[in-house]
Amino acid sequence: MSYMSHLECSKCGKRLDSEKVQQLCQCGGPLLVRYDLKRVKENFNRNDLKERQPSLWRYWELLPLKDKKNLVSLGEGMTPVIKMEAAGPMVGLKNLYLKDEGNIPSGTFKSRGATVGVSRAKELGIKTLAMPTNGNAGASWSTYGARAGIKSVIVMPQDAPEITRNECAITGADLYLVDGLISDAGKIVARAVKKYGWFDVSTLKEPYRIEGKKTMGLEIAEQFNWEVPDVILYPTGGGVGIIGIYKALQELQAIGWIGDKMPRLVAVQAEGCAPIVKAWEEGKTESEFWNHAYTCAFGITVPKALGDFLVLDAIYKTNGCAITVGDDEILEAQSVLAKKEGAFICPEGAALYTATQKLKQQGWLKEEETVVMLNTGTGLKYPETVKVRVPLLQPDDDIPNA
Amino acid sequence: MSYMSHLECSKCGKRLDSEKVQQLCQCGGPLLVRYDLKRVKENFNRNDLKERQPSLWRYWELLPLKDKKNLVSLGEGMTPVIKMEAAGPMVGLKNLYLKDEGNIPSGTFKSRGATVGVSRAKELGIKTLAMPTNGNAGASWSTYGARAGIKSVIVMPQDAPEITRNECAITGADLYLVDGLISDAGKIVARAVKKYGWFDVSTLKEPYRIEGKKTMGLEIAEQFNWEVPDVILYPTGGGVGIIGIYKALQELQAIGWIGDKMPRLVAVQAEGCAPIVKAWEEGKTESEFWNHAYTCAFGITVPKALGDFLVLDAIYKTNGCAITVGDDEILEAQSVLAKKEGAFICPEGAALYTATQKLKQQGWLKEEETVVMLNTGTGLKYPETVKVRVPLLQPDDDIPNA
Repeated sequence: MSYMSHLECSKCGKRLDSEKVQQLCQCGGPLLVRYDLKRVKENFNRNDLKERQPSLWRYWELLPLKDKKNLVSLGEGMTPVIKMEAAGPMVGLKNLYLKDEGNIPSGTFKSRGATVGVSRAKELGIKTLAMPTNGNAGASWSTYGARAGIKSVIVMPQDAPEITRNECAITGADLYLVDGLISDAGKIVARAVKKYGWFDVSTLKEPYRIEGKKTMGLEIAEQFNWEVPDVILYPTGGGVGIIGIYKALQELQAIGWIGDKMPRLVAVQAEGCAPIVKAWEEGKTESEFWNHAYTCAFGITVPKALGDFLVLDAIYKTNGCAITVGDDEILEAQSVLAKKEGAFICPEGAALYTATQKLKQQGWLKEEETVVMLNTGTGLKYPETVKVRVPLLQPDDDIPNA
Repeated sequence: MSYMSHLECSKCGKRLDSEKVQQLCQCGGPLLVRYDLKRVKENFNRNDLKERQPSLWRYWELLPLKDKKNLVSLGEGMTPVIKMEAAGPMVGLKNLYLKDEGNIPSGTFKSRGATVGVSRAKELGIKTLAMPTNGNAGASWSTYGARAGIKSVIVMPQDAPEITRNECAITGADLYLVDGLISDAGKIVARAVKKYGWFDVSTLKEPYRIEGKKTMGLEIAEQFNWEVPDVILYPTGGGVGIIGIYKALQELQAIGWIGDKMPRLVAVQAEGCAPIVKAWEEGKTESEFWNHAYTCAFGITVPKALGDFLVLDAIYKTNGCAITVGDDEILEAQSVLAKKEGAFICPEGAALYTATQKLKQQGWLKEEETVVMLNTGTGLKYPETVKVRVPLLQPDDDIPNA
């Protein structure tokens, strides 16, 4: 059973009823799900996990779904943690790991938010959901929405990864492109939601997506045998992942599954869109809208995140940091990880590898530290990042020595 | 530890040394890995699996790798089994399941063969491997080859899925396209292998790929709690999966983990390339080369499979069958599974859904039977199968009601 008790505003602390459909708090703050952690501690054991499926729903007690009949799952979660035996030492790190969210339905970590968010939306009787997206979130929510019998309305920038259009189309979403950024898509969705009464599943505008993202933190703890790593790096757009991981680790501390040690959380952004990094460098608790945002790591082109203050809080509280990388470095890192590790990951994830290199050079990372890069998706969705020059042979042609 | 004892020719029964690099038997027959199943039975328990990672390497005792230091893994396996709650009843089946091989590195089941084949190649000291491919196998072997530090030479038809070129390129393979079919690519590779002494990893020309594919059968047995389903459908090109699943189930019977019941195995092919179906319909034990092969399910465009006799044997021995479906039906099935189940799968996998419909109509499948469709890969690698028509908005535009 779920031990969800209520919702709580992350800004003003107001308590709200989790059995009603909720969006933002009246004060404009995103809502967080709260659990009766005392009862979780009494009734949920790490050993219970051994009997459970390798999906994120193994942490049912810490998730918000009440009735299993509302579960909308495609078998997502428990993505692998892979040691970078070659690429780690290349940047001076002996214990560098990649948690690979490419191995998940729709190929990105967005499906974690979608399975939990859509399941809970189904439980609460939602018929139509709407969202602005940089592509992957829309693809995931449309996919899970289809499985749930919920209609999805998706608005994405025309520069979003093309394959995400296919995913929305084949799973039956009402899909629109916008000649602009995700912030423009957000305004279109906001107007439509107001007009038609749809459920707005924009980043952090409903409380349950973050609970799905949270499971990345739960899994990292379990996969490192409840000894959390020293550092977790995360490519930061809307920042729900880093907020979720931090929330997960706090909950695990509260139920006594992990000790006091908290990983230092690192937000990685692109030089062409780095509002969180700028705010962190200036010691601020909120970010400012980033003008003329552009990066090849399209998923993190978010000029102003609604949850920026939560991301910054997680960084400050864990003694983490925020750092930018350039697009050329990102593509180079993607190539190195593919060639040296067989890890063909998305540009957003590849940015983390460049960040580890810089942080090691700065002395912020130590050689022996256990460092986890949270790769948010598969490279398969980004064919344009790979240059291919390939000879065409006739059947009678021969090939040269390798 | 692995209980591999030797290799055995699938045609003449000759016993060969598994500690040497082997290709085909002198008689031309593919080699199968044999284990000391008596000792496996004594020393390996189903309960042991509870303590193991959700990867295909959990079945270590039944796999051919001797030393863990040679393991080349990206965390592949234990792919989800998803119930088709909507699409099953639509074809008159109450217990229709999809085992979804899309959730795996490189997005297809080919990575199972690659992780085991490349690991074993590394263990045997291979430096360069070569293969003809319809795309996905080449992508997987190049990926795992990169991780192993083994050079890959890949030859694929120019019509193979384009994303597989990117995968080969970014992971550092020597890649060639051929103006022809996989059979043409195979001839080019055969000439080059002879000339340069590379390790030929063409389908069934080395013994270990099948051991990786075998794990699909092991997982299905475990995921159905050691009560095997009534029927397993498999999209059949080279047929290694169906051969492997049959081998897995025989081994599980030998060690007493499953009972006498064997699922009926079904080979599904496209109307435009159906050599196995033709042979089965004619009661033959081998297939003939299929001229002018063409189907949108590109992965199963195999005019003549080296292991055709093993595929047919598995079908005959399990009272299975072989059936064709048309390309239009395949694309329609792909759309239905995406819209009704949120399962965006490859055309090869979608073909299975059409096959279930036909077999149910023929009375070959019964309403209550447990039927598993083995989807071999993600739809993300086949964008051209989805038609997208999407309006482009300006930021001030509004959208209509859903």
